[in-house]
Amino acid sequence: MNKEIKTNEIQIGLLGCGVIGTQVATELLNGNLDCKLAGKNRIKLKKILVNDLSKSRDNSIPESLFTNSPDEILLDPDIDIIIEVMGGEKPAYDYVIKAIQNGKHLVTANKELIAKHGPQIFGLAHEKKVQIKLDATVGGGIPIINTIMDSLKANQITEVVGILNGTTNYILSEMKNSKKTLEAALKEAQDKGYAESDPTNDLEGIDAKYKTSILASLAFHQYIAPDQVPSHGIKSISPADFHFAEELGFSIKLLGLAKQFEDGHISTSVYPSLVAADQPLARIDGVLNAVEVRGDLIRELMLVGPGAGPKPTSSAILGDLLSLIKNISSDFPLPYKVLPANARSKAEESSSDEKYRFYTRLRVNDKVGVIRDLGIILAKHQISLESISQKAHTPDSSWEKGGEATLIFLTHSIGEDKLKIALDEIKQLDPVNEICCILRVFE
Amino acid sequence: MNKEIKTNEIQIGLLGCGVIGTQVATELLNGNLDCKLAGKNRIKLKKILVNDLSKSRDNSIPESLFTNSPDEILLDPDIDIIIEVMGGEKPAYDYVIKAIQNGKHLVTANKELIAKHGPQIFGLAHEKKVQIKLDATVGGGIPIINTIMDSLKANQITEVVGILNGTTNYILSEMKNSKKTLEAALKEAQDKGYAESDPTNDLEGIDAKYKTSILASLAFHQYIAPDQVPSHGIKSISPADFHFAEELGFSIKLLGLAKQFEDGHISTSVYPSLVAADQPLARIDGVLNAVEVRGDLIRELMLVGPGAGPKPTSSAILGDLLSLIKNISSDFPLPYKVLPANARSKAEESSSDEKYRFYTRLRVNDKVGVIRDLGIILAKHQISLESISQKAHTPDSSWEKGGEATLIFLTHSIGEDKLKIALDEIKQLDPVNEICCILRVFE
Repeated sequence: MNKEIKTNEIQIGLLGCGVIGTQVATELLNGNLDCKLAGKNRIKLKKILVNDLSKSRDNSIPESLFTNSPDEILLDPDIDIIIEVMGGEKPAYDYVIKAIQNGKHLVTANKELIAKHGPQIFGLAHEKKVQIKLDATVGGGIPIINTIMDSLKANQITEVVGILNGTTNYILSEMKNSKKTLEAALKEAQDKGYAESDPTNDLEGIDAKYKTSILASLAFHQYIAPDQVPSHGIKSISPADFHFAEELGFSIKLLGLAKQFEDGHISTSVYPSLVAADQPLARIDGVLNAVEVRGDLIRELMLVGPGAGPKPTSSAILGDLLSLIKNISSDFPLPYKVLPANARSKAEESSSDEKYRFYTRLRVNDKVGVIRDLGIILAKHQISLESISQKAHTPDSSWEKGGEATLIFLTHSIGEDKLKIALDEIKQLDPVNEICCILRVFE
Repeated sequence: MNKEIKTNEIQIGLLGCGVIGTQVATELLNGNLDCKLAGKNRIKLKKILVNDLSKSRDNSIPESLFTNSPDEILLDPDIDIIIEVMGGEKPAYDYVIKAIQNGKHLVTANKELIAKHGPQIFGLAHEKKVQIKLDATVGGGIPIINTIMDSLKANQITEVVGILNGTTNYILSEMKNSKKTLEAALKEAQDKGYAESDPTNDLEGIDAKYKTSILASLAFHQYIAPDQVPSHGIKSISPADFHFAEELGFSIKLLGLAKQFEDGHISTSVYPSLVAADQPLARIDGVLNAVEVRGDLIRELMLVGPGAGPKPTSSAILGDLLSLIKNISSDFPLPYKVLPANARSKAEESSSDEKYRFYTRLRVNDKVGVIRDLGIILAKHQISLESISQKAHTPDSSWEKGGEATLIFLTHSIGEDKLKIALDEIKQLDPVNEICCILRVFE
């Protein structure tokens, strides 16, 4: 038997009170959740951990709830469930471990924490017979984690792919639909509160890497650490790429991809990708997230919804809380196995079966013979092209400089390693000034 | 405490062995599910109820499992969980009630059963402390029921709308994309196994009515019987409607809609609807189902996937089974309240706030003055038009007969009652031969 609730009052400790924490606290305090518990239990928010007690906060939260002493929550024997919305690796990890050691169940929205330390946290929770709920770590309000862990549990999942970062999707949508530059679209996203003042984690694909690591681990029941997920951001994408992508019939999306091949090999990546315009993912614009799951029974399921924001994220956190309370005496089975380090490195090797079409944009001097020289190198490496296009400077294409031309090519399916070797040689060609952007085609 | 499993072997009784039952039995017998239970439990399919023992069946199911005696399953004290996939109201209802009375948990895919008898089944289950799982009743493999009951539980849901019937969606998609007649598209759906030989339940919106009843009841925590859901089928839709819909910028979809207004009033319907071409639901084609849910926290969530078929439906049934086993000691709270009959009739009254734009197609004699006469009647009832269009017979429009013309109009937002009164008068006009088709615009 698991830890049982002592009274019918479920006491909650909240770690963090930023925008999401404030929303969660407000919902917990307004009493609406109690009626969802069918009268058997009552939820009581006991304490909220904050960094700075003197900071002015939402008036609807009584000041007496705030504390800056973690142990007041982590060691309080009356607190049954911890909701962790502080984000980041430290000190969240230490707090969460201490809470579980003290027999508290956990609801978390912290993707970095679960991506990096899932094995330790799940392992300890299993040992201490407490439950972990983590639906809010990926996809904001979209119940993708619960869908994979519960509803699709009978499936052998073969692929999970999604638009997992709302900030970059907003930027890419604005670049496409309003012909903005990346800088202008980012500025707008920051003004609207969709992007942080330091947007590194979003733009460089780190946020999507954490989420892909979590989805892959849960879908394939094997821990895939974030550093095993090769990740690329969107910083190299320019308006020129949207111009060419559209000509070729594609949208550009930053996709997190996790795939298991028939031989058991798992491949994960975060890659800015060309998505055929008639595919559902191509039409997911703005701050929306979308995830597609393929499995042996379900075939294909797609979930689309708000991937961030205090209300949607609270929807996931509080849904998790209610479900945790409903099934509080249930076991918490380990969601995945953790391979030893030497076995893990095998998972990192990319399979020779993994072939994609690649799009490459180069800046070249507008001289005779560039395409010939490029063709010679590609042919040597047995890379065949589906299309190639060179555009000289035109008055209305601000992305081209005088005397230079933009050259793009789209390969047939090849291994990425092969392309990289060829590009290293192409880079040495005299008229090639820069290899600007590489995109992968999502099939 | 609920009924506890006696051993770590969970014994299953399966009611029904059609295409879905066969798929479920195969999955239960191949042992793949046991490893999903983290080693603690083992699933054993003990008996399968069939009508006719002499019928030849899938060889992979041992003959010894079949029985034609319901009590061999319903009264077997060793059977813990019943999976009901026989479909239809009777005798499924009697079997399910008897099983619950004997303390058995239930996983069901039977929409008619749950739509018509949910209150009795849930009430008895609550009393007997057994659980009911019903994800497969709506949307095939799409986990829409679990999403509403669990993941979105913290939300105040305001609207659920969806393409809930794959057969009619296939027919409408073929009529649109391949310019087929309804009869030709139906024939094709039957040939491909998407439609039954008697397609009444699909074409007349009865299947969608059951599903809308279930979704509305669970979303708004109040039982809405299927006979409270005004339902229309797709039989009046002709190629002409797709022609005009496309001109106006719409797709035609059969939508199940459940909406709760701020005053608590609930409105439900199954209506062939015009959906603006840029809305996600407009692009869900073929046998796919899609459901959109709106709530105070989540804002809007969409799920898209296969709405029928043995494998996707098994995904839902077996996901439910695994989740039932995991949480087998949990309480089963009543998912909705049941209002007494006199209060229920109030829910049936349509709110005067409910206004929609309506599309109407008429067959008229191609004479001077039709539009004038129609205009006079509409003006009298204060119905203003957004657009009106009349097409005389042309050689390439096979849907128009000599001497006749097709007239369509699209109203501004009005109450449906008002339109109906006006149409009753219009029907009396001498040149009006028939009011062929009424569609509602989904906003």
